[in-house]
Amino acid sequence: MSGFSLETPAVVDVFTEVLKRGPIARIDIARRTGLSQAAVTKAVAPLLLRGLLSAHDNMRPTQPGRPVQPISVNEGAQLAIGVTVRVDEVFGVATTMRANVLHSVTRRLASTSVEAVVEAVAATVEALQRRLGDDAEKVLGVGVAVSGDVDKQHGFVRASPRLNWSTVPFEKMLRDRLGLAVIIDNDVRALSIAEEWFGIGVDAESFAIVTIGAGIGCGLYVNGDVIEGAYGVAGELGHLPLGPSDLVCSCGRHGCVETVASSSAILEAVRSAKHDPLLTMREAVQLARAADPDAVAAFERAAVIIGMALATMANLVGPSVILVAGESVTDFDLYEQRIRESFDEHTFGAAGQCQIVTRSHTFEDWARGAAASLLRASVTRT
Amino acid sequence: MSGFSLETPAVVDVFTEVLKRGPIARIDIARRTGLSQAAVTKAVAPLLLRGLLSAHDNMRPTQPGRPVQPISVNEGAQLAIGVTVRVDEVFGVATTMRANVLHSVTRRLASTSVEAVVEAVAATVEALQRRLGDDAEKVLGVGVAVSGDVDKQHGFVRASPRLNWSTVPFEKMLRDRLGLAVIIDNDVRALSIAEEWFGIGVDAESFAIVTIGAGIGCGLYVNGDVIEGAYGVAGELGHLPLGPSDLVCSCGRHGCVETVASSSAILEAVRSAKHDPLLTMREAVQLARAADPDAVAAFERAAVIIGMALATMANLVGPSVILVAGESVTDFDLYEQRIRESFDEHTFGAAGQCQIVTRSHTFEDWARGAAASLLRASVTRT
Ligand SMILES: [Zn+2]
Ligand SMILES: [Zn+2]
Repeated sequence: MSGFSLETPAVVDVFTEVLKRGPIARIDIARRTGLSQAAVTKAVAPLLLRGLLSAHDNMRPTQPGRPVQPISVNEGAQLAIGVTVRVDEVFGVATTMRANVLHSVTRRLASTSVEAVVEAVAATVEALQRRLGDDAEKVLGVGVAVSGDVDKQHGFVRASPRLNWSTVPFEKMLRDRLGLAVIIDNDVRALSIAEEWFGIGVDAESFAIVTIGAGIGCGLYVNGDVIEGAYGVAGELGHLPLGPSDLVCSCGRHGCVETVASSSAILEAVRSAKHDPLLTMREAVQLARAADPDAVAAFERAAVIIGMALATMANLVGPSVILVAGESVTDFDLYEQRIRESFDEHTFGAAGQCQIVTRSHTFEDWARGAAASLLRASVTRT
Repeated sequence: MSGFSLETPAVVDVFTEVLKRGPIARIDIARRTGLSQAAVTKAVAPLLLRGLLSAHDNMRPTQPGRPVQPISVNEGAQLAIGVTVRVDEVFGVATTMRANVLHSVTRRLASTSVEAVVEAVAATVEALQRRLGDDAEKVLGVGVAVSGDVDKQHGFVRASPRLNWSTVPFEKMLRDRLGLAVIIDNDVRALSIAEEWFGIGVDAESFAIVTIGAGIGCGLYVNGDVIEGAYGVAGELGHLPLGPSDLVCSCGRHGCVETVASSSAILEAVRSAKHDPLLTMREAVQLARAADPDAVAAFERAAVIIGMALATMANLVGPSVILVAGESVTDFDLYEQRIRESFDEHTFGAAGQCQIVTRSHTFEDWARGAAASLLRASVTRT
């Protein structure tokens, strides 16, 4: 990746620890990486010279003797751009190396044709570059996140039902258009990388991020890394066959979780019960809050299957914590109780000790995930 | 663990590579561990001195210059004992450090009471020690594998429906009885460790081992390690809620995969259809082979849900290959076709590229898994 290369695996490990946890003392870096303190000092030296890291005098040494001089990253030394593609808009951010957002930009999307999306992403990136001014030259590259089956390694979107794409060489198209390094990634996996490096993963040994909304996705972090899937597919919680086998999913399969639990499936169920094809999601939520039995039933049916899907994931992968994120988390209280009951009913043994926590992710967080995916690829490619 | 400790993380990594892949050249160890060749040579030195590793002159150097001197493990330098506990018997093996079996012993089990099992395991271990003679002093410890929810770290069997145990401090009981280091583990996870170190995992980046029989279990290897589960539970394929919600599982939950797909569920279905409560599994298999519609239907119903469970796992974790193992693999042809169809029907996108291969595992393999679990714990604890 242009403008950035780290010398050895030890330097990568040390830089990664400082990026995730800094300021951090050399002795803690050594403990976490399994390197000797001498090896840590050796790895830190070129990074200090290049201005990527700083060593500060600790003003309040907690122990007598030599000051600790914790190491921290100069997060503005290099920058990243992250872009997330939704059905109706493209959202982009410029961030520091710790994925802290400096600028953000939105572009409406008139169509989800590949050409229209490439142009909208390019316009978003160019707008961010203008905002960055002279700092634009510090940009390592662009991470772009889309929903669906993304072959990150070869740069293909293999299938995105939401965008109605199949086998799109999206990375190359963007690289040719932008003249910058590009990484494409599944949107939930990208969000997981942001949580792994700069969020819940800094403290949890394993975690899952589950997004509930138009689609239902899941990023899994276990054994020190995001699960990418040997063929690029993993965490497809929305397409587990836990639903009624007579319902057909947007992906063409029968009985997927999303046939009952996606926001459009819930809306469809309420519309059908109310004989009102123009009912909006906001109205469906209002009906449920007003204890309308049809609306409550639709949310409950979704909640039961979401709980089963979370239990399935906990029984198979056993994460330390499940973070429920995504757009409809604001209405999570509508089915939270029923989700937890269904989860408790189907988790096997100690798997049920897994905590479910909720956090609302904004569009900015999704774009930040794309930037984190780019950053991780930049740092770990030596 | 007594009699075995490795000096540094680098020594552990180097020893592990040689154990799994030896004979292996220093340059290949360096490439795989990310260590420099100098660091590899430094790590190898004490292991050569202690007689754990050997360096041989390569008789047929493929390149001119210095001979390659590949490194290999002296697999008999230390030994392990592995024991697997079944409902009606205890099976034990003494193995080398590469889990190659030297001796094996079986003991009938009159009862699955904790005391009876502890005594049977102890008798098995003592019989193996007698067979080993003077070599018994090389034994690092005993690995014991049981089905169910095992807290390996704290040494508890939390719940084993098959043995009808809950919250048994099995490790401590065995350690007190045997005076040896003991590791207890879930049986399928133990089998996964054997495959990880000495089987399919030597070449595959990720894999799943699925066992189909009295229970349905799954060991998952991904991101460089077996998935242990944050609370000790993972891979519980038999207890995913993919079955009919009116059927109650041996674990007490509704709709688990095992309610339809365990060997006893299949037998029960055929017995019920034939109004013959004394029908044996062998007879049920014969009926299915003779195309009896009731027997065929029972196996097909099991196959459909097993295929769904495998697809669920592939959609979530995306392993490179699924190894179907276990006792009833000999009859796998009865439902293999239907399993594959159901798998293809429910895998999302490229997850369906995951290969399903079958291999028959004997009782010896299960005990060997327990030995591998002990070996891995011995090697990686520094
Ligand atoms: Zn689907
Ligand atoms: Zn069950």
